[in-house]
Amino acid sequence: MEGAEATRIMMGVNESTIKGYPHASISSRGAFDWTLQKIVRSNTSGFKLLFLHVQVPDEDGFDDMDSLYASPEDFKNMKHRNRTRGLHLLEYFVNRCHEIGVACEAWIKKGDPKEVICHEVKRVQPDLLVVGSRGLGPFQRVFVGTVSEFCQKHAECPVISIKRRADETPQDPVDD
Amino acid sequence: MEGAEATRIMMGVNESTIKGYPHASISSRGAFDWTLQKIVRSNTSGFKLLFLHVQVPDEDGFDDMDSLYASPEDFKNMKHRNRTRGLHLLEYFVNRCHEIGVACEAWIKKGDPKEVICHEVKRVQPDLLVVGSRGLGPFQRVFVGTVSEFCQKHAECPVISIKRRADETPQDPVDD
Repeated sequence: MEGAEATRIMMGVNESTIKGYPHASISSRGAFDWTLQKIVRSNTSGFKLLFLHVQVPDEDGFDDMDSLYASPEDFKNMKHRNRTRGLHLLEYFVNRCHEIGVACEAWIKKGDPKEVICHEVKRVQPDLLVVGSRGLGPFQRVFVGTVSEFCQKHAECPVISIKRRADETPQDPVDD
Repeated sequence: MEGAEATRIMMGVNESTIKGYPHASISSRGAFDWTLQKIVRSNTSGFKLLFLHVQVPDEDGFDDMDSLYASPEDFKNMKHRNRTRGLHLLEYFVNRCHEIGVACEAWIKKGDPKEVICHEVKRVQPDLLVVGSRGLGPFQRVFVGTVSEFCQKHAECPVISIKRRADETPQDPVDD
């Protein structure tokens, strides 16, 4: 199996939902660390990681809730801020891959995360999709919805859902 | 990550459901091949495969239910009368692991496959559970039930479900 093409692992990554914390969510980092430790291990040349960050159009304006939009430029500025946040997120993962020596790619899409992820799986055809999961209870799931469950059913490649470790669960499990 | 303990991957394996064909099911072999090609790759010392075969009590029973089989010799030493279908099945996977040089263990349990697999995950605590899936449609699923869906929800470790390739689907997808 030497010399075979690298195993391409797509990872859906997102930001912490806690406001003012523009960093990778606990569950995204957990899924990333797990993949490195348990799958990639020392075989850094055998894998390529593909990081997809999906920005939800409605949520993106969260920080801009009290802003006033008076000109097309205001929207451009907002878009610029969102782009910056997304890039900051991806930078974290790309930097870590470079430190370790694992090939990677990263990109941003807009839309409903679960549908965009499945669409991108179809387009990019990775060998495996890894998604973090917040491990919400059935009651919370109804309202929050789980990207991981949807992807396990609909993505056209094998899927691993990595649950956040119990000791990393924030007080409100929706905060991640 | 050199020198770290091997990643322990548990695989639920079963026989073809076609009578008179006492071999690994298409989906079990598919899940096994996928794991070797995409995860283990050339890093044979980084992984240990744990093969669990769950026999449904009605099918057949025998005395070696709690024995551990770790090498081809273990099987040769078995009395002929015990060389039953379950052993034949596990022998296939253990032999292939020995050819490739991947450490493994295999054992048989009795019961409802989905419940026994989740129970064994709890007991053995693998890093990852891989199960083959026959990719049945929603109508067939109602009657056949899917082990993989149950495990994805209830197993206390990350789970990958490997769907059988479309070109390997038998005429009746329940035959596997």
